[in-house]
Amino acid sequence: MSISGIMNAIHPWIRLPLIVNAPMRLIALAPMAVAVAHAGGFGFLAAGTDVGDLKAELRKAKDLVQNTFIKGSDPDVLPIGVGFINWGVELSTALNAMKEHIPAAVWFFAPKRTEDLIEWTSEIRRLSNARTKIWIQIGTVADAVRVAQTCNPDVLVVQGADAGGHGLAQGAGVVSLLPEVADVLEEAGLGSIPLIAAGGIVEGRGTAACLALGAQGVVMGTRFLASKEANIAKGYQDDVLRTTDGGLSTARTGIYDTLRGITGWPSRYNGRGILNQSFWDAQKGQSTEENRRLYNEAMHKGDQGWGENGRLTAYAGSGVGLVKEVKSAQDIVEEVRRDAIDVLSKLFHTSSKLQYKLG
Amino acid sequence: MSISGIMNAIHPWIRLPLIVNAPMRLIALAPMAVAVAHAGGFGFLAAGTDVGDLKAELRKAKDLVQNTFIKGSDPDVLPIGVGFINWGVELSTALNAMKEHIPAAVWFFAPKRTEDLIEWTSEIRRLSNARTKIWIQIGTVADAVRVAQTCNPDVLVVQGADAGGHGLAQGAGVVSLLPEVADVLEEAGLGSIPLIAAGGIVEGRGTAACLALGAQGVVMGTRFLASKEANIAKGYQDDVLRTTDGGLSTARTGIYDTLRGITGWPSRYNGRGILNQSFWDAQKGQSTEENRRLYNEAMHKGDQGWGENGRLTAYAGSGVGLVKEVKSAQDIVEEVRRDAIDVLSKLFHTSSKLQYKLG
Repeated sequence: MSISGIMNAIHPWIRLPLIVNAPMRLIALAPMAVAVAHAGGFGFLAAGTDVGDLKAELRKAKDLVQNTFIKGSDPDVLPIGVGFINWGVELSTALNAMKEHIPAAVWFFAPKRTEDLIEWTSEIRRLSNARTKIWIQIGTVADAVRVAQTCNPDVLVVQGADAGGHGLAQGAGVVSLLPEVADVLEEAGLGSIPLIAAGGIVEGRGTAACLALGAQGVVMGTRFLASKEANIAKGYQDDVLRTTDGGLSTARTGIYDTLRGITGWPSRYNGRGILNQSFWDAQKGQSTEENRRLYNEAMHKGDQGWGENGRLTAYAGSGVGLVKEVKSAQDIVEEVRRDAIDVLSKLFHTSSKLQYKLG
Repeated sequence: MSISGIMNAIHPWIRLPLIVNAPMRLIALAPMAVAVAHAGGFGFLAAGTDVGDLKAELRKAKDLVQNTFIKGSDPDVLPIGVGFINWGVELSTALNAMKEHIPAAVWFFAPKRTEDLIEWTSEIRRLSNARTKIWIQIGTVADAVRVAQTCNPDVLVVQGADAGGHGLAQGAGVVSLLPEVADVLEEAGLGSIPLIAAGGIVEGRGTAACLALGAQGVVMGTRFLASKEANIAKGYQDDVLRTTDGGLSTARTGIYDTLRGITGWPSRYNGRGILNQSFWDAQKGQSTEENRRLYNEAMHKGDQGWGENGRLTAYAGSGVGLVKEVKSAQDIVEEVRRDAIDVLSKLFHTSSKLQYKLG
């Protein structure tokens, strides 16, 4: 079976190239996941580091799915996925939260130790009778091979350094990471695992590019921050729309975790966010104590706490400069998929002429 | 005229998608530039920061060109380009070195102030009667617009953060940088300037991806480090062939400039190189003095000074893990161009089926 055949077999409602929303903690919830699925994408809701609300969120998703039509492989499986930030979640609690409504996929990211994912994988496959597919996010070639060999995941999400929010502090962009991962997996006899690209992709051109690099589809986070279904403060969303020149106005940093007192991330991770006064003051050597005091003060300002002169965290990828407008998740999925196919058609017609000239 | 038409009109011997070798200081000299041109690419020799040898190198190129067949627009113009690192070069010296053999293009990179390029552009156009085309490398959207408006370059090289050697310390990968640059130039009425992508591209998939992102071609540096025509130490070249997992085994750093006593780079630049003992010792807090002493000691070891346990500088991009074999520059150009077209053809045939399903 072709790789695209594999994707369709495991998640029958999807259309290719596959568009996926990133399971952004606190932001991607049932409405986003179901809207993305409804448009033929793969929708994830974020459990993140805290699965306290997961059971309720899956119930909401179930209700939303019933009001729409999404052709799943199994009527007893919710046609959406759940994203975990594994270092912060107890496996037993996660299993318990997913008993009532089995999701079509889970997404693993940032375990304390890569080996922890072996048990997560086998226990979730056992719970769901293998109806829940295992997606695992990696950011290096070494992790891709290790995870592929030990967990036999159904899908690998390959995250490049342009991604917003958390990811590896040190890594390559998708332009080199994806082909190297694909080649090394192929050499190891693991070339049939579908790869989904993440990091810096916000529209059709980036999607088409990732298909050329060897992916079956893409994950977008930043693009969905500016969706109607995002559970996001207006100040944060406005910051995304305002920001241009994404490589210059965002950076990978640990400052936002420090200021918010978030301490659980394994040391090799940090987050890409829009640069603001918190960042610049830290760069200038302001004490963490004073910076944190100002951060907490900014939190009381609500939406005014964000912005270039604001202080609050606005995680976003380097593609943020291409996001100009809030749209529905359905429109985003359909537009990006259509544009990607359009880009490829146009390029083919150019490249046919080139082949003639080459011949 | 289409953008690809513009490229062909200014450099008639090239084939699309255009493959360009990066003007790597001390490494890309006349043999590499002419071999790349001979294969239908655009070849650059590096003047770098020191134009003392430029006149002699252009003479060598002239001799090499005469032994081959490259259809230029003008028999009096050398069908190759010269790359400058502008902060280190006096314009008058550069003009003097190019009087005898006019190159088909110059490539500007890293001026002290962006405005300096205005005079460089006009003086070189005056010297060559506009037969020398102006290529300018940028790494942000802001620089792209500024340079396009003030210099009206013939080509913009858009360098992403995955590039090896020097580039902006902070920036985006090509996946988001290229489309944002393209859109902003288009909005400013400057959309007819061809864009050439650089940074992390070493083979056909990356090339096809950059075409999807809006480029007319790509620059490769790291791939040409492993070419027969590279003027490179065997220890350095072996390091390139050995290194895998490019995002993990390379990083952007200022340490190699520090250790080699190179002080002229404007502060916003650093270089991506393969991580070795120099880097790790600096990370561990070793004094610069001691690190430099060990560096100089390693220089006496010749080729043994490189490698994972070595200390010498091996600048390389994050695509280094995909480079496995030394080939001729001609083979590299032809293979990458063919593979890129092949990738696009295959994707089109897949996407045609998808369009049918979408319809």
